[in-house]
Amino acid sequence: MKSYHTHGGDVYRHQNVTDFSANCNPFGTPESVKEAVARAMDQVCHYPDVECERLREAISRYEEIPQEQIICGNGAADLIFALVLALKPKKALLPAPTFAEYEQALEAVDCEIKRYTLKEECGFLVGREFLECITEELDMVFLCNPNNPTGVLMEQDFLQDVLRRCEKSGCILMLDECFVDFVEHPNVHTMKPYLTESENLFILKAFTKRYAMAGVRLGYALCADRELLEKMRMVTQPWNVSILAQEAGIAALSEREYVEESMKAIHRERIWLLDGMKRLGYQTYASSANYIFFKGPEDLYRQCLERGILIRDCSNYYGLSRGYYRIAVRLREENTKLLHVLEEIRALQAV
Amino acid sequence: MKSYHTHGGDVYRHQNVTDFSANCNPFGTPESVKEAVARAMDQVCHYPDVECERLREAISRYEEIPQEQIICGNGAADLIFALVLALKPKKALLPAPTFAEYEQALEAVDCEIKRYTLKEECGFLVGREFLECITEELDMVFLCNPNNPTGVLMEQDFLQDVLRRCEKSGCILMLDECFVDFVEHPNVHTMKPYLTESENLFILKAFTKRYAMAGVRLGYALCADRELLEKMRMVTQPWNVSILAQEAGIAALSEREYVEESMKAIHRERIWLLDGMKRLGYQTYASSANYIFFKGPEDLYRQCLERGILIRDCSNYYGLSRGYYRIAVRLREENTKLLHVLEEIRALQAV
Repeated sequence: MKSYHTHGGDVYRHQNVTDFSANCNPFGTPESVKEAVARAMDQVCHYPDVECERLREAISRYEEIPQEQIICGNGAADLIFALVLALKPKKALLPAPTFAEYEQALEAVDCEIKRYTLKEECGFLVGREFLECITEELDMVFLCNPNNPTGVLMEQDFLQDVLRRCEKSGCILMLDECFVDFVEHPNVHTMKPYLTESENLFILKAFTKRYAMAGVRLGYALCADRELLEKMRMVTQPWNVSILAQEAGIAALSEREYVEESMKAIHRERIWLLDGMKRLGYQTYASSANYIFFKGPEDLYRQCLERGILIRDCSNYYGLSRGYYRIAVRLREENTKLLHVLEEIRALQAV
Repeated sequence: MKSYHTHGGDVYRHQNVTDFSANCNPFGTPESVKEAVARAMDQVCHYPDVECERLREAISRYEEIPQEQIICGNGAADLIFALVLALKPKKALLPAPTFAEYEQALEAVDCEIKRYTLKEECGFLVGREFLECITEELDMVFLCNPNNPTGVLMEQDFLQDVLRRCEKSGCILMLDECFVDFVEHPNVHTMKPYLTESENLFILKAFTKRYAMAGVRLGYALCADRELLEKMRMVTQPWNVSILAQEAGIAALSEREYVEESMKAIHRERIWLLDGMKRLGYQTYASSANYIFFKGPEDLYRQCLERGILIRDCSNYYGLSRGYYRIAVRLREENTKLLHVLEEIRALQAV
């Protein structure tokens, strides 16, 4: 049986490490979010608002999307499961490698999975032949932009073609934009403008990464098909988003400056870190997100852990073998430490 | 389409009311729980522990059940959905009326529902003929003890017979004990002692009611069938229990005195309130829980609301018609206010 806890970010069984394995904003949770949660504790004797009304209003203003097209969940992952359970697809198309929860959710409803293998020689980019794979026998297509764990970004032109193809084939495009905010010029890359014209588009977003609040659990999705959103609510408990998450989310959305500043720093650090890794001779890939995907020796995970650094061993991703890793882009001091450790390991192996 | 928010506790669309519609501990959330959550905000940049290790250890000590037989969820309702999705039953048996989420979860997997109607003339008690309804065509049997919304308690002898019958028929008994802590002598009523001898028994419990923390979302279940628990994890996102909920739960379980004191007060108030309602001529039923189920005029919900009291209109429960209501047992001052309002409405109608 497959283990259910083969993810990054397990700081519980690896204590006193610097965690590069989870992809959260290295600036940490904003103070205003912490304060909002502490205040909300006076309200938790009540059930949460099942309609997430104030939170959806706040998301509506932030995303400039009508409130009726927004659904909130107990983390973005909760919404993947709810969507799949609402649609009960018979066959779905996924790239490989990609975020493992798409597959896990599909398996929960016994859906057949068709995989499009991303090729290393093409830099793990989704090629145009992906379009040919979208046929009428499919019920769902999953894409993650930029992709997790590779960080590779797809162009909007291509995604438009994917969406058109999905419309023709009558299937839903589950587009995971959880990391699109970390890309330079997110507005050029998000498929949000196509929501109004297509009910086949379902865009997934999270608070987790943007505001470093993975432990709170809060995600949302945007979709113009209101019947689909209602179906999702019918296959989910009514109180899935806690009062704490709702209040944390409302506070977080006001943190415009925090987001702006941290994005600038992450872009700068990503370039610096990529450059450092290349100099050390590590094979990296063209990441547009707040993490870097790379190749390294087979025991790199262990070697790093012994030196107090937790990285993501990506060998358990479908479509990847041993020797692939992912690290989050963190602050300069931590990134410097990481480079030192990688250098030390490199030097040992060169002996 | 059925509305998804026809529950009690909607203080969001009914502000400045005293909420008798949700069944939480009237003593409010313990301070230690609030403090634990505030402290935990420094950790939420990390993902939650997918294994809920420390929380399950604490529950294990509290319930005296091995840690391997415990699963945690985003509220008890989350576990109902996970269980049903893991089992994908074809046919299930439920009493009517009972907690609406059993049905909602079963509908999410297109399960056929067989209903055993509780009769008012029998005080809404589950009769022995229920046993005859447990046949081999069933995959699951749902029971809630004491039942929601009626508050009626089943004897352990009877539940043992139900469990034996489930074993013979090869089906799972989902026994909801979320309110068993509010009963006098819970130890005499819980079916926990039968977990070790039967893998067909699945016991559901919540923090929501015992510690007045409905807004945090935290529930757990006890079951000796470890394969079933593993299946439930496979059909759920790994991070469904937030760090805040895990820390709140650990703190709550130390609040032995709070629980003891509040149970004593609730037992006293339940008797006082029942007595008062009977004197006013309201038809009540034999509740063993922290809420009272009763009959009243058809516009009682509205009449109470106009007087600042939110009660639970139970007419949308399957098996009930208009004129049935549920109120939580609260503190003396609030209970006095409720009785005054009920008296006032009675007097108006007598004119």
